[in-house]
Amino acid sequence: MKNSFKIKIPCSTSNLGPGFDTLGLALQLFLEIEVSTATEKTEFVLSGEGKDALPLDESNYIYKIYCQGCEIIGATPRSLHIKVRSDIPLSRGLGSSGSAVVAALVMANELNGGSLTRDQIAEIATRIEGHPENVSASCYGGLTVGCLANEKLFSCQILPQESLKAVTVIPEIEILTREARTLLPEHVPFAVAVNNVQRATLFAAAMATGQFDVLREASKDKLHQPFRKKLIPGFDALLESAYEAGALAAFLSGSGSTIVALVQENASRVEDAMLSSVASFNYSASARTLDIAREGYRVD
Amino acid sequence: MKNSFKIKIPCSTSNLGPGFDTLGLALQLFLEIEVSTATEKTEFVLSGEGKDALPLDESNYIYKIYCQGCEIIGATPRSLHIKVRSDIPLSRGLGSSGSAVVAALVMANELNGGSLTRDQIAEIATRIEGHPENVSASCYGGLTVGCLANEKLFSCQILPQESLKAVTVIPEIEILTREARTLLPEHVPFAVAVNNVQRATLFAAAMATGQFDVLREASKDKLHQPFRKKLIPGFDALLESAYEAGALAAFLSGSGSTIVALVQENASRVEDAMLSSVASFNYSASARTLDIAREGYRVD
Repeated sequence: MKNSFKIKIPCSTSNLGPGFDTLGLALQLFLEIEVSTATEKTEFVLSGEGKDALPLDESNYIYKIYCQGCEIIGATPRSLHIKVRSDIPLSRGLGSSGSAVVAALVMANELNGGSLTRDQIAEIATRIEGHPENVSASCYGGLTVGCLANEKLFSCQILPQESLKAVTVIPEIEILTREARTLLPEHVPFAVAVNNVQRATLFAAAMATGQFDVLREASKDKLHQPFRKKLIPGFDALLESAYEAGALAAFLSGSGSTIVALVQENASRVEDAMLSSVASFNYSASARTLDIAREGYRVD
Repeated sequence: MKNSFKIKIPCSTSNLGPGFDTLGLALQLFLEIEVSTATEKTEFVLSGEGKDALPLDESNYIYKIYCQGCEIIGATPRSLHIKVRSDIPLSRGLGSSGSAVVAALVMANELNGGSLTRDQIAEIATRIEGHPENVSASCYGGLTVGCLANEKLFSCQILPQESLKAVTVIPEIEILTREARTLLPEHVPFAVAVNNVQRATLFAAAMATGQFDVLREASKDKLHQPFRKKLIPGFDALLESAYEAGALAAFLSGSGSTIVALVQENASRVEDAMLSSVASFNYSASARTLDIAREGYRVD
């Protein structure tokens, strides 16, 4: 049983256009945690994203999920000293919540004998999140495809070509996933369902086979982006600017506010074009070009 | 310019559960055509499936589509002698219509200089059919994923493991695709759309990566089978019998009436179980286990 260790978890973009609650892609922006057992009370030391916003005691979300993990394993939670360093911005659609859930469950597992497999951690994390796309990507790396059925996770991993990168444009707009979900309709036209079935499937097939010339069409969504885009001024123009600068695909990351453009080359040109587009709508955003994380969480 | 040649086109199963108008899988059951230019009037000589039901003159569907193909190419249709040998049953959801469209367009192309590429033939065939899944499979072979947008076909091909076979159970029930389409609802719950997005995407990913253990969940459809299954007595029991006998996936082929079960082994056991199930509902069916056609149409 380990008493001190580090966990490194990649962030993720999800949905990738039409793959609502389906597709996740792990990116090289990380949540890193150093855990050691504490003699007295639990204490968090935070740096990076969220450091001034998140609690430093047992009310921290990571500790709460750690307790859930202990309960599942049948162990008693301990007092811990937890150093958190996060580069994943909060409430921006980059899976910070999914990464935190995975971190907390891995922590519970490592502190209690490590008997849970990666598949079990992914499944428990999916149950807690309610949807598989972010936690699967953070667990396995690469592009993940999956669903939760009867509390069981069914998931496949696709490793796209190494040359693929994600330009992330992160507006100064916070969006809470649960609020973004209330914008979605209860019913959709049959043709909308078929639109997304075709394109999400084509997206996965294109990533698996390297036929990137279909990605632009394959990223066209009618299920959630049309309802959520009102939260992001100039959303359509922003995607268009990415395509004009050479992006292969562009979409809302998760429930936003981040916009991701996939590129093989032209990354800085796409970044510049998207930032100019944002500026023309009078708000600001930061941009980073990230490599795909080809592996999931790692424990050292 | 050829004046005499043969074309061999594989049939296809489509939808594969959740992949409505999206997924097609080419199977080794063929439409074969021998074409030669005729000095007098056009004449068909038919054998195999449909031989007593289809016209022998220019009103034959293949000749009509051949004329459309000539128009697209900018050529004048000629009188032809066409020997057709089909093993693809009509109105059973095995893509006989898609195969015929592809045959006719390839015929038009070969008789007029052969300047159309396979991609162009697939695109024109998709426009004529209105949906890509059967014609794409007949053109490219393997598992095809695609959509038609602004009259342009976007398609990817996935070649599944060679060990995969399709058990086809073909009831003595004819179903016309256009009538089966009238059974579909105009709107669906958002959750139904997400169900099919998740599972169709997972299906394609599983076929691309060989992770066949997820195929059963990945083949669960809520978009069309629940509405069409009333045309096939004991549909749910039939699928269940396939799974009990070891099938990886089981679904309605196209709009039916054929049911397809994918297997790696146990083919004859699955065939027997499905035929027993059919018999218990007091109708009859024939069964054939088919290999995947890994290549599309061929001209000799």
